[in-house]
Amino acid sequence: MYIENIIQHIKQQQPLIHAITNYVTANDVANIILAIGASPIMADEVLEIEDITSMAQGLDVNLGTINQNRFAAIKKAGMTANQKHIPILLDPVGIGASRLRQQYVEELLEYIQFDVIRGNISEIKALYQHSKTKGVDANSIDQITKDNIEQVVCFVKEVAKTYHCIIAVSSAIDVIADEAKAYVIYNGHPMMSRITGSGCMLSGLCTAFMSVNQQEKLDAIALAFMCHGIAGEKAYERMENNHSGNATYRNDLIDAIYLMSIDDIKEKARYEIY
Amino acid sequence: MYIENIIQHIKQQQPLIHAITNYVTANDVANIILAIGASPIMADEVLEIEDITSMAQGLDVNLGTINQNRFAAIKKAGMTANQKHIPILLDPVGIGASRLRQQYVEELLEYIQFDVIRGNISEIKALYQHSKTKGVDANSIDQITKDNIEQVVCFVKEVAKTYHCIIAVSSAIDVIADEAKAYVIYNGHPMMSRITGSGCMLSGLCTAFMSVNQQEKLDAIALAFMCHGIAGEKAYERMENNHSGNATYRNDLIDAIYLMSIDDIKEKARYEIY
Amino acid sequence: MYIENIIQHIKQQQPLIHAITNYVTANDVANIILAIGASPIMADEVLEIEDITSMAQGLDVNLGTINQNRFAAIKKAGMTANQKHIPILLDPVGIGASRLRQQYVEELLEYIQFDVIRGNISEIKALYQHSKTKGVDANSIDQITKDNIEQVVCFVKEVAKTYHCIIAVSSAIDVIADEAKAYVIYNGHPMMSRITGSGCMLSGLCTAFMSVNQQEKLDAIALAFMCHGIAGEKAYERMENNHSGNATYRNDLIDAIYLMSIDDIKEKARYEIY
Repeated sequence: MYIENIIQHIKQQQPLIHAITNYVTANDVANIILAIGASPIMADEVLEIEDITSMAQGLDVNLGTINQNRFAAIKKAGMTANQKHIPILLDPVGIGASRLRQQYVEELLEYIQFDVIRGNISEIKALYQHSKTKGVDANSIDQITKDNIEQVVCFVKEVAKTYHCIIAVSSAIDVIADEAKAYVIYNGHPMMSRITGSGCMLSGLCTAFMSVNQQEKLDAIALAFMCHGIAGEKAYERMENNHSGNATYRNDLIDAIYLMSIDDIKEKARYEIY
Repeated sequence: MYIENIIQHIKQQQPLIHAITNYVTANDVANIILAIGASPIMADEVLEIEDITSMAQGLDVNLGTINQNRFAAIKKAGMTANQKHIPILLDPVGIGASRLRQQYVEELLEYIQFDVIRGNISEIKALYQHSKTKGVDANSIDQITKDNIEQVVCFVKEVAKTYHCIIAVSSAIDVIADEAKAYVIYNGHPMMSRITGSGCMLSGLCTAFMSVNQQEKLDAIALAFMCHGIAGEKAYERMENNHSGNATYRNDLIDAIYLMSIDDIKEKARYEIY
Repeated sequence: MYIENIIQHIKQQQPLIHAITNYVTANDVANIILAIGASPIMADEVLEIEDITSMAQGLDVNLGTINQNRFAAIKKAGMTANQKHIPILLDPVGIGASRLRQQYVEELLEYIQFDVIRGNISEIKALYQHSKTKGVDANSIDQITKDNIEQVVCFVKEVAKTYHCIIAVSSAIDVIADEAKAYVIYNGHPMMSRITGSGCMLSGLCTAFMSVNQQEKLDAIALAFMCHGIAGEKAYERMENNHSGNATYRNDLIDAIYLMSIDDIKEKARYEIY
C-alpha cells in the first residue's frame, strides 16, 4: 500500500464529497472531511440533487434519521453518481432497527451499484440476511475476535461477492474486503463507541479516501479505517492526560485526523492481509 | 434517595433512549446520553417510528424546530410508548412562542400519558394556561426565588396533579414534583443559559435516568437535575481556569457528566424536599 | 464607528435572532449568537413562522441544506419581517451549486427586501449574474486581492445598488458595501476555511449586530466581520499553542467571540474605507 500516495491525492486534489447524512452527526462528518483535506457539501433536496452530486468526486449516503424526502434524494443521488462514475459509499445505519430501513436498503441495492458498504457487524449481517444467495451462515458471528477472524473474513468476502462491492465492517477488529482480498485492522479504541457519529465520520473519511484513489479502492478504504482507528487511539491518550470526557474526545478525534502524519500512520498501523 | 442504585442501573443496563429532538441540539443530546452510560437512538420518520420506539427503554420528545412530519412521528411514538409501557418525557420547547406549538402540545396531551413534562417556568406556565382546571394563579410567578418557593411548589404540584405526571421545572432554582412531593434543587450555574441545548440535554438525561428507575421516577428525575446542575458548576470552574468561552463550556458540561462520580454528587448536591 | 455603542446595544438588549439555517451548522450558529450576547431561536415550520419571526429583532435566512418546506418557511418569514420592519440577512449558500438555489434566491428577491446579503465572492457573483442590470463585469474577479480591490469595491457597490441593500463579501479580504461606502477588512485567517460553518456563523453574528444598530447598519455589519476575523486570528494562536486541529479551532473561534473585548477589537481591527 502506497500510504503517501493515497494521502497525497486527497491533500492535493481536495475532492468535493457530497454527503447525505443524518442531522445528528452532519457537523462532525463535515469537519472530519475537512480535517483530512477534502471538502464537504451537504444537500438532500431531491429537486437539486442531480446538480449537486454531479459536481462531487465522491458520494456518501447514510440512513441515520432517514425520512421519505431524504430517501428520495439518496436514491436519485446514487443513480446520478452511477451515471457519472462517481464512487459511492452506503452506510446502512440501523438497517436492523426497522423494516422501513430494510426496504430502503433493498430498493437502493436494486437501483444503485455501490462501491463500498460500510457498517458494523450486525448491520452487515442484517444486510446479508436479505440477499437471495446465502453461501455463508453468519448467525454465530456476533462480534469479531481473534478466534473467529477467519470465519468472519470468509463471510465478508462472500458478502462482497454478493453485492459486487467492497464490504467494510467496523468492530473492535475491522474487516475490509472485496471478494478476493481482506484487510484485518487492529487499530481503534473502545472509547470511540462512547461518542455519537464515530461510524458516520468513518464513512465520510472512507468516501474522501476512495474518491481520489479509485485505482486502489480497497487500499484506500483500509487506510481510512487505519487513520480513524489511530486517531481514536491518539484521542484517548489526550483524554487520559487532560482528564476529559466524551465531548472533548470527539473533538480530539477530529483534531487527530487533522494532525495525522504519514509517520504516525506507518508507526501505528496494525493490520494483516487475508 | 439511593443515588448509587439509580446511577448503577443506568451504567449496568445501558438503556436505549429514543430521542425525537430538534436538529439544533441533537448531537449534544446524543453525546450527553452516551456520557451518562445510556445509548441514544434518533429517528423521526413516522413510517418506522413504531419499530424504533418499541426497541427503546425510554422516549424523549422535544418540540424544538418542530415540523408537521416530526410532529406526526412524535404523536405515534408517544402512543406506541404508552402501549408498550415505555416511559415518556415531553419537553414542550417554546410552547409559548407559537399557537402551533400550543395546539401540538394540547393534541399530545389528549392522546398520550406522559411520565414527565420538563420545561422552564414560562413553558410550564404556558402549558397550564391551557388546562381546563385552574386551581392556582401562576401569573405572578416569573422566576423561582427563595422568596416565592412555597408558592411555586404549590403551583408545580397542582400542574402535576392536573396532568397526572411529574412536572420538572428548570430555573435558577429547579422544582421537580408530583402531586404529593417536590424536590427543590439549588445546583446549576447561570453560564448554562449561554449555550444552546442545555435544556434539551437535561431532558435527554432525565429520560435515561427514569428509563431504568421506574419504581422511583421522581427521585431519578431529581437526581438527573442535580447531576446536570453539578456538571454546570464543574464546567464553570474549568472555564474560569482555562479562560475559555461558551463553546468549550458546552464540551466541559458533557465531559463533567461523563466524569461524574457518586462522591461528586453526594458532596455537591444541594436540595430540599417539600 | 462607535464600536462601544454597537457592542453595548447587543449586550444590553440581548436581541432575539430568528435563524432559519441548515442542519449542518445550526448548533454553531446558535452558540455564536449566544457568545456575542444575543439570543437565538430556530424554527422552520411554515405554519408557525409568522408567530416566531414576529417575536424576533432580526432574521437570518440561510440556503444550506435547503428543501421545499424550509424554503416556504424562509419566504413567509421574510415577508413577515418586511411587514414588521425586522431587519433580514440573506446567506445564499451555494447559489451557484444548483439551479434550484438560483430560482429560490430569485423568488426571495422578488418578494422580500433584504437588508444585507452576505456570501463569498463566487456566491455574490452568481447572484449578480441573474440581475437584469449589469453595469459591471465581474467575470475577471475570482478572489479579492490588494491588486484588484478597487475593481471589487466598485463591483460590490454596484450589486448593493442593484438590490437596494448592503452586500457583504467574505474572502481573504472582505468587502462590505452599500452603494455609497465600502469597508475593506483585512482580519481573518485561512484556518477559518478548514471548519464547516464559518460563513453561517458570520451571518448569525451579522444579524445580531445589525438587529439593534439599525441606524448604522453598515458599520454594524463591518464590525461583525472584524470581530469574526479577529476571533479567527485569536483561535489560530491558541491552536498553534496547544497543537490542536480543526474541531478545537471551531470551539476556540466561538470562545473568542465570547471573550472578545472592546480593547481587542480596537487593537486588532484592520480595515480601510472606500
